[in-house]
Amino acid sequence: MLTTRLTHALGITHPVVLAPMDGVAGARLATAVTSAGGLGLLGGGYGDGEWLKREFAAAAGTRVGCGLITWSLARRPELLDVALEHRPAAVMLSFGDPAPFADRIRAAAVPLLCQVHTLDQARQALDAGADAVVAQGGEAGGHGVGTRSTFTLVPDVADLIADRSPATLLLAAGGVADGRGLAGALALGADGVLVGTRFWATEEAVVPARAQARAMAAGGDDTVRTSVFDIVRGYDWPDDYKGRVLRNGFVDRWHGRETELTAQLAECTGQFEDAVSRQDFDVANVTVGEGVSQIHDTPPAGEVVRRMTRDAAARLGRWASPTTAVGGRDGTAPREPEVSGP
Amino acid sequence: MLTTRLTHALGITHPVVLAPMDGVAGARLATAVTSAGGLGLLGGGYGDGEWLKREFAAAAGTRVGCGLITWSLARRPELLDVALEHRPAAVMLSFGDPAPFADRIRAAAVPLLCQVHTLDQARQALDAGADAVVAQGGEAGGHGVGTRSTFTLVPDVADLIADRSPATLLLAAGGVADGRGLAGALALGADGVLVGTRFWATEEAVVPARAQARAMAAGGDDTVRTSVFDIVRGYDWPDDYKGRVLRNGFVDRWHGRETELTAQLAECTGQFEDAVSRQDFDVANVTVGEGVSQIHDTPPAGEVVRRMTRDAAARLGRWASPTTAVGGRDGTAPREPEVSGP
Repeated sequence: MLTTRLTHALGITHPVVLAPMDGVAGARLATAVTSAGGLGLLGGGYGDGEWLKREFAAAAGTRVGCGLITWSLARRPELLDVALEHRPAAVMLSFGDPAPFADRIRAAAVPLLCQVHTLDQARQALDAGADAVVAQGGEAGGHGVGTRSTFTLVPDVADLIADRSPATLLLAAGGVADGRGLAGALALGADGVLVGTRFWATEEAVVPARAQARAMAAGGDDTVRTSVFDIVRGYDWPDDYKGRVLRNGFVDRWHGRETELTAQLAECTGQFEDAVSRQDFDVANVTVGEGVSQIHDTPPAGEVVRRMTRDAAARLGRWASPTTAVGGRDGTAPREPEVSGP
Repeated sequence: MLTTRLTHALGITHPVVLAPMDGVAGARLATAVTSAGGLGLLGGGYGDGEWLKREFAAAAGTRVGCGLITWSLARRPELLDVALEHRPAAVMLSFGDPAPFADRIRAAAVPLLCQVHTLDQARQALDAGADAVVAQGGEAGGHGVGTRSTFTLVPDVADLIADRSPATLLLAAGGVADGRGLAGALALGADGVLVGTRFWATEEAVVPARAQARAMAAGGDDTVRTSVFDIVRGYDWPDDYKGRVLRNGFVDRWHGRETELTAQLAECTGQFEDAVSRQDFDVANVTVGEGVSQIHDTPPAGEVVRRMTRDAAARLGRWASPTTAVGGRDGTAPREPEVSGP
């Protein structure tokens, strides 16, 4: 078992948190992740209050939290009340300044997770009093800023936290899809990981099997960050945010030609909506990150948690051999572990 | 000490290789890295035969290799003879198909390292018979493709190697700037790392102190991948390749306005060249990667090797505590270590 500050703080067994993927992470998926020892977060997304109530009700008896899109929440602030009424295990805010909502979440004694994409956003999250910062690299599926990547953003945010707010926890997100990703994230200084794409491709995810099949056939070179699906869906994302998706015919046609797409919006939206209903994923979006290359099956989510944590422990544990001396040539002692045992 | 397949194969102490940064990685820097137990590579870059001869001569007595830009080498193939005459410890080819040169390198019994940015390029490197693939994420300073990042490219290439050519070694590049980066890279499945930016900021690097001072003041959010400096330098890079640099006044003015820059080329080139000679780095380029946030000093390169390897060993070693069980809930044994002890 890999126990970290995160597992202690959240009272979970494994340092693995389900990314609150809009529409995809419902009660079935969230409870499966929690039941396997991680923490499930419902994908509150753009803000459908009825969906959130229903999924929290369906998850009753299992500890789950939820994630909300900050700029969307600003338009429907009552959604936070819906979430807090269900005593969530955590609330994660993404894609905007968490400050306007942080006090209500803290007053409810609910852990606040803030997803960030840059160091500036990480500073904002600490200012808002986040209990955990989720440092999301551009590798991630779905929306993000894309200017920073997991490998350097995680240690950068770790340093910021160490300097400004050492008790704040750090999760790595973006590209974490197997035990290597979890082991790598912990080595880079994270206390745990937030996982999207790998859970997207599980039995419990609300994802058409046809979309999952496309992902299984794809490699890490096959994704791109684009706004074309936001345009046809009429989503009002702030300029900096685009969504990473699998390349398909629609992306190849319109990515880089957004002005033309906007000029033909009615027609293209019709085509897109038709494709969604027909599950034609050469037009409809398949929202996955670069970690898609690690997707070769669609097991139960609990199996993903077990595989990921088992493999990460084995990978990290192999350096425990007596041939691996700890400390340098000059014989100085290593720094104090930042990750504690139980 | 962290010993891996790479240290055994190259006969080095630490799995740390100096990126052959054009102009920056001369004999002083390369020999310092080798002397500290890593492997130094001279930055053969765009192909100055006299420079290469002089630096190899200056390094005589210490094992160093060199790196060459493939598309540039194609125009001056005699440069490979210059390199091979000096019995380099390794030759690294970057930014193009290595196939036309691989046979001569293999015939000289010199290890061939091929830098790749995508899975397709990794396949090409394996086809060419690379002894080691350097998987470079877009975090890296200087030129690259930038569509993939270290955190997912490394495991992707590791899987490709395991499938097609298990004896081939794997180095991670892009964002590796401290012990966390080395530990993270090993956890992600690499056999070692190729390090640029962190060695760029050392005593032995051929870099003006003023440029290093700018880097020390910068953070990881402050770099950008751009072609503006290639345009003013008249460098003929293939379309896919742009260079990551520190943002400065020149970048802020011209990045995204490349057509206008080209229209005013003579004037802007004059300004740029003047700025280089005056060491005015608000105009001249400061070529560093996202790992720049980890640059807080300019120690001797040997000290960088020692710090990085000592901290990585400590980070990985802390998971050796008895509280970290290896293996999963189901009691299955972990897979065989891919990294062997001495």
